[in-house]
Amino acid sequence: MKIIDGLKWRYATKYFNKEKKVSKEDISILKEAVNLTASSYGLQPYKVIVISDPKIRESLKEASWGQSQITDASHLFLFCNNLNVTDVDIDNYIQLRAKINNLNPEDSKEYADMMKSNIGSLPPEILSAWTARQCYIALGTLLAASSEMEIDSCPMEGFDNNKYDEILGLKEKGLSSAVLCAIGYRDDKDSFASLKKVRKSISDVFEEI
Amino acid sequence: MKIIDGLKWRYATKYFNKEKKVSKEDISILKEAVNLTASSYGLQPYKVIVISDPKIRESLKEASWGQSQITDASHLFLFCNNLNVTDVDIDNYIQLRAKINNLNPEDSKEYADMMKSNIGSLPPEILSAWTARQCYIALGTLLAASSEMEIDSCPMEGFDNNKYDEILGLKEKGLSSAVLCAIGYRDDKDSFASLKKVRKSISDVFEEI
Repeated sequence: MKIIDGLKWRYATKYFNKEKKVSKEDISILKEAVNLTASSYGLQPYKVIVISDPKIRESLKEASWGQSQITDASHLFLFCNNLNVTDVDIDNYIQLRAKINNLNPEDSKEYADMMKSNIGSLPPEILSAWTARQCYIALGTLLAASSEMEIDSCPMEGFDNNKYDEILGLKEKGLSSAVLCAIGYRDDKDSFASLKKVRKSISDVFEEI
Repeated sequence: MKIIDGLKWRYATKYFNKEKKVSKEDISILKEAVNLTASSYGLQPYKVIVISDPKIRESLKEASWGQSQITDASHLFLFCNNLNVTDVDIDNYIQLRAKINNLNPEDSKEYADMMKSNIGSLPPEILSAWTARQCYIALGTLLAASSEMEIDSCPMEGFDNNKYDEILGLKEKGLSSAVLCAIGYRDDKDSFASLKKVRKSISDVFEEI
């Protein structure tokens, strides 16, 4: 199981090597993995901003309690959830599904209406919490994929979401910053790399019935 | 990249083969993968109930709009988030971390206090939403791990969380049902297996800055 080996190998990298960048090819593979992630109804109600620009990262660092990963990692993957999922988004999904599978989109009208009714009835803050949760499935994929490639990662919630939204103009695009993952290569000085992984026992976490 | 191959192979299985069960050994591997998942502060604020009991699954099916995966899949992985994260939970984590790494837990007092202050200040519904999001990272790992093992999966949010909580007595244990994943092997009759995967283009989902 390559994935288990990767997950055992990875840790939340605190200090990244500033000089060692993840190659364009590897970033493409990570994007592909993230894009293959499952999401509710398959709607993928998010955008992922891959940030390498040093200036923007300096501003983001200030909005992240000065954590060095923000500027030192090779790339940041910022998962931004949709604030709304409109009927148009659903129609676009149905069209895409029909096109890829050579179907008549009209045959999916009932399914589309069910989605529109379910999603349309959600209050805005419930809808936004739901699209944010979808980002976390994608984060799980990114962590598994990057570790399988021996690329280091640090998933991060410790940032000021409102300031991120402001710096990146997310609200205007109907988005909100949900969760962040720094990607790159560990620095030799990162003493966290030598700590053993801390996990509860299987019997503490799992129950079988 | 085995993970990419797995993610391409998988789909949201609608009809499972009722006779074909996932082996005990493979369930153990899936548990290990899930348990290796990253979580905020490493606290793993959830339990995962692995359900095979047919009677319980009949009750759960009624609380899931009759969806056949609930009774037909080999196993259900129900991710249940903690409703609260107490100072005791944090102390337990610090103790575990110290034990595994042969550290003095007293040396982490400042870190523990920071966690207690951050988490203790969250209103109950914000705290619960946060622990629920952690479950979704673990769901991402489960989907990647199972597909790498050519085990089929169907992540599911379409169930009545309150009824699940009631049937399984979760609230009394300080838990709430967050998200579900049916695990098993596809049935030959599942026409969804032959559909091509529907995903937005990379340029629709990702932005590079």
